[in-house]
Amino acid sequence: MIRVVIAGARGKMGQEAVRMVTGEPSFQLVAVVDIKFAGLMMKDVEGMEPLDVPVYNDLHDCFAEVESDVLIDFTAPEIGKKHVVTALEHGVRPVVGTTGFSEEDVKELSALAESKRTGAIIAPNFAIGAILMMKFSQMAAKYLNDVEIIEQHHDRKLDAPSGTAVKTAQMIAEVRESKRQGHPEEKEQLAGARGADFDGLRIHSVRLPGFVAHQEVIFGGEGQSLKIRHDSFHRSSFMPGVKLACETVMKLDILVYGLEHIIE
Amino acid sequence: MIRVVIAGARGKMGQEAVRMVTGEPSFQLVAVVDIKFAGLMMKDVEGMEPLDVPVYNDLHDCFAEVESDVLIDFTAPEIGKKHVVTALEHGVRPVVGTTGFSEEDVKELSALAESKRTGAIIAPNFAIGAILMMKFSQMAAKYLNDVEIIEQHHDRKLDAPSGTAVKTAQMIAEVRESKRQGHPEEKEQLAGARGADFDGLRIHSVRLPGFVAHQEVIFGGEGQSLKIRHDSFHRSSFMPGVKLACETVMKLDILVYGLEHIIE
Amino acid sequence: MIRVVIAGARGKMGQEAVRMVTGEPSFQLVAVVDIKFAGLMMKDVEGMEPLDVPVYNDLHDCFAEVESDVLIDFTAPEIGKKHVVTALEHGVRPVVGTTGFSEEDVKELSALAESKRTGAIIAPNFAIGAILMMKFSQMAAKYLNDVEIIEQHHDRKLDAPSGTAVKTAQMIAEVRESKRQGHPEEKEQLAGARGADFDGLRIHSVRLPGFVAHQEVIFGGEGQSLKIRHDSFHRSSFMPGVKLACETVMKLDILVYGLEHIIE
Amino acid sequence: MIRVVIAGARGKMGQEAVRMVTGEPSFQLVAVVDIKFAGLMMKDVEGMEPLDVPVYNDLHDCFAEVESDVLIDFTAPEIGKKHVVTALEHGVRPVVGTTGFSEEDVKELSALAESKRTGAIIAPNFAIGAILMMKFSQMAAKYLNDVEIIEQHHDRKLDAPSGTAVKTAQMIAEVRESKRQGHPEEKEQLAGARGADFDGLRIHSVRLPGFVAHQEVIFGGEGQSLKIRHDSFHRSSFMPGVKLACETVMKLDILVYGLEHIIE
Repeated sequence: MIRVVIAGARGKMGQEAVRMVTGEPSFQLVAVVDIKFAGLMMKDVEGMEPLDVPVYNDLHDCFAEVESDVLIDFTAPEIGKKHVVTALEHGVRPVVGTTGFSEEDVKELSALAESKRTGAIIAPNFAIGAILMMKFSQMAAKYLNDVEIIEQHHDRKLDAPSGTAVKTAQMIAEVRESKRQGHPEEKEQLAGARGADFDGLRIHSVRLPGFVAHQEVIFGGEGQSLKIRHDSFHRSSFMPGVKLACETVMKLDILVYGLEHIIE
Repeated sequence: MIRVVIAGARGKMGQEAVRMVTGEPSFQLVAVVDIKFAGLMMKDVEGMEPLDVPVYNDLHDCFAEVESDVLIDFTAPEIGKKHVVTALEHGVRPVVGTTGFSEEDVKELSALAESKRTGAIIAPNFAIGAILMMKFSQMAAKYLNDVEIIEQHHDRKLDAPSGTAVKTAQMIAEVRESKRQGHPEEKEQLAGARGADFDGLRIHSVRLPGFVAHQEVIFGGEGQSLKIRHDSFHRSSFMPGVKLACETVMKLDILVYGLEHIIE
Repeated sequence: MIRVVIAGARGKMGQEAVRMVTGEPSFQLVAVVDIKFAGLMMKDVEGMEPLDVPVYNDLHDCFAEVESDVLIDFTAPEIGKKHVVTALEHGVRPVVGTTGFSEEDVKELSALAESKRTGAIIAPNFAIGAILMMKFSQMAAKYLNDVEIIEQHHDRKLDAPSGTAVKTAQMIAEVRESKRQGHPEEKEQLAGARGADFDGLRIHSVRLPGFVAHQEVIFGGEGQSLKIRHDSFHRSSFMPGVKLACETVMKLDILVYGLEHIIE
Repeated sequence: MIRVVIAGARGKMGQEAVRMVTGEPSFQLVAVVDIKFAGLMMKDVEGMEPLDVPVYNDLHDCFAEVESDVLIDFTAPEIGKKHVVTALEHGVRPVVGTTGFSEEDVKELSALAESKRTGAIIAPNFAIGAILMMKFSQMAAKYLNDVEIIEQHHDRKLDAPSGTAVKTAQMIAEVRESKRQGHPEEKEQLAGARGADFDGLRIHSVRLPGFVAHQEVIFGGEGQSLKIRHDSFHRSSFMPGVKLACETVMKLDILVYGLEHIIE
């Protein structure tokens, strides 16, 4: 049984995390941390699940009073960083989904985790399907080195290409030699038709109403093609990744940054 | 039984046409027209099927000696035009797959067909699946007016976007008001990510080894999406369109340009 | 300006309809009909939008006091039928999304609409993308008569295949001769691999968590394939169909059953 | 420079192998082995490429006279087995694409390779894209354990499901607990709709003209889906796998059975 504390339990991700932890037989929700409502039980707070679980304001107090194994943190970078420090000092393993940690922050917290011999996982993206897509794309690029990325999002998105598309392209670029794809003399009759260039591979961004977040990585080779596609419909898609991180962090004695490093 | 003459029978498309006509119980191949080999039977010519079908050099001679209903022509524009005139004068209905007819040519031949009250079909593209894709896209654009086109071809193709993609975009533009899609303030972090702009809709061209000729037209609407995709693997894909044209031309007394106008 | 009354305005579909009508510049919401709350304004009813629009209990009263063009009805079959009669008697055109009308009902209401020379539309499915998919599938089946249907739904769905898949298969069967597909001597090493048989075509039902409602109709032909796919993510996808029905019903003087008959 | 001998050079796969080896700057074709034509050069044999490469009948003679590193064998199981023995005895590394080796055969040849400390690779399937699809599917099944397989082939195929689909299902079954998918009370209104059952996962076999060999593995999870698709259009798709095997076998001192074991 893994005893879990959740910080940021009223936020969108925090609420999903509460649902995941309470629905998992091998997990036990032992406390939540919130800016307000210290001293109450969750069931007494509007917007929280009707649970007999205590609410704390201060993480030190929480760990002092409640035996805990893992801290799931979906707060903000500032607070998140302090929470990681506090958790490690109490021997509680942090699983952090907050984005915005600097390289500096990660280095510092890694040193602390190592000195305490306590596992920690920080991941900007817990969508396990998306992580698998990126990882498989990198693996495939070793063997099939012509590839294009098509990402599709709702038409309220401002930036193109998406962060996931760029991350995927970077991971591919790590394993294949830079290669300008397409016919050397190809011409765009309409500018932009061939998409964005990233180290020779092409990225195409589709924006349409009705879409959520989708990406297809397409490899072409003599006589064949391989496609890896991820469709994300809802933020609940992050929870299998959070669950995996909680289970994995129990066996770690260092800090791992990025979910891709705990997937085999 | 429709009696068919094929001109250009040794070419790639002509050979496919011979196979289609001889394989169709309601069709009969009565003669072929070729620059060489006049006076021989097909079975006596290397590279032709082993058939007891006469080879002619001159189309007048052919129609004088052999009762014919339809001429399938896969020659070149110059010769093709003459063949249409000859056929119409003999009351034989031409089905022409040669590209390169000018608007002038089409107007002139239309007048001739009308005066002779004899059907004729000229089509730059006989791939019935591709025609259906374009037609359906135009129909859908009346109801769902956010749309992007992704076309995928082998990486030896020089131009982007493909002719079919541009034709599809034109057909869509005929039925919907010009509309700039995507977020009004969207930004390309990498130039070209959002593809080529055609009257506000976006076209993306993928070029990869292993691909042949593929196109996907994607419509997005509140809470839904509709996709129409055509994959073309081989030139034999043109034959159902040729067959349909042969059957339809028997009921026409005017010239029709473009297969899309005989599909309901 | 089309003046609209909505019956069943607190239901899930009714709420979407209120949002659609009030968001459409050429539409005006003039009243809603509800079992409770007669005499109040919408803004005074919890769960209704904060609008200065009167709530009626009785449709006769409503039409007597408020000038109306169209009644959108998302109630239940029993009430829905009475509403259609009342609307037609007041010269108001009904657009009904309630399912469960018998053939008898439709015949009776058609006669009434015709005698009153007043348009009416009843449709069991307003998802315009799904209707287009079915219509295109029927059109394509005339030219490419090998086809299989793959429908994909969430894994809480009890029946397989889905109603939409069966409806699509029926529409295809109307236009093509019965044809047993696949190799005449094909064998299933694992029973069910080749899917369900419907008049010779095959239907495959996928059930997976995370999916909503999706269908792909795949046509194969010599050297090519054509795919038509619809993805439905949310019930808001029905509103473009409702809007189209409201616009179309204004030009009708008969009853039309099924959205497919008003799509060209 | 890897010096390559090809056995079975006139067969379909052998011809592709000749094209691959002669097109690869780091490879050199030093001899071919054929039942006939011993003593001639390839350029003197009809149906062989116009190359100054000697043809041998006997593999012993070949290795005695020509310095070789790798033997690519696309013959038949009987001969193939003998060829592996001969090659290992001469210190030449075999890469064998012949199917039909028994478990016994593989064990025996493994022992020989180990005693000779010489690498060898035998693979029933060299389509690297298909191997990657299977490998990724197995990896994904650890994290997303609801999965269905849709395989699509031309309609001349007799068996369903395909061997690749069954192999994929087996690899998935190795890593996930047996799980009956779909709603516990789901009902097939048409028998077969839910496809074939393999340890609780479902396999669907589509057979349509125009298709070659395609497979999609679909994972569903809360709020997301992951798809891995391989399309095989032509037997040339096997050559990147053969090339990889030739490069890898140079670093091996044991026998490896199955391409999936040399892909990381």
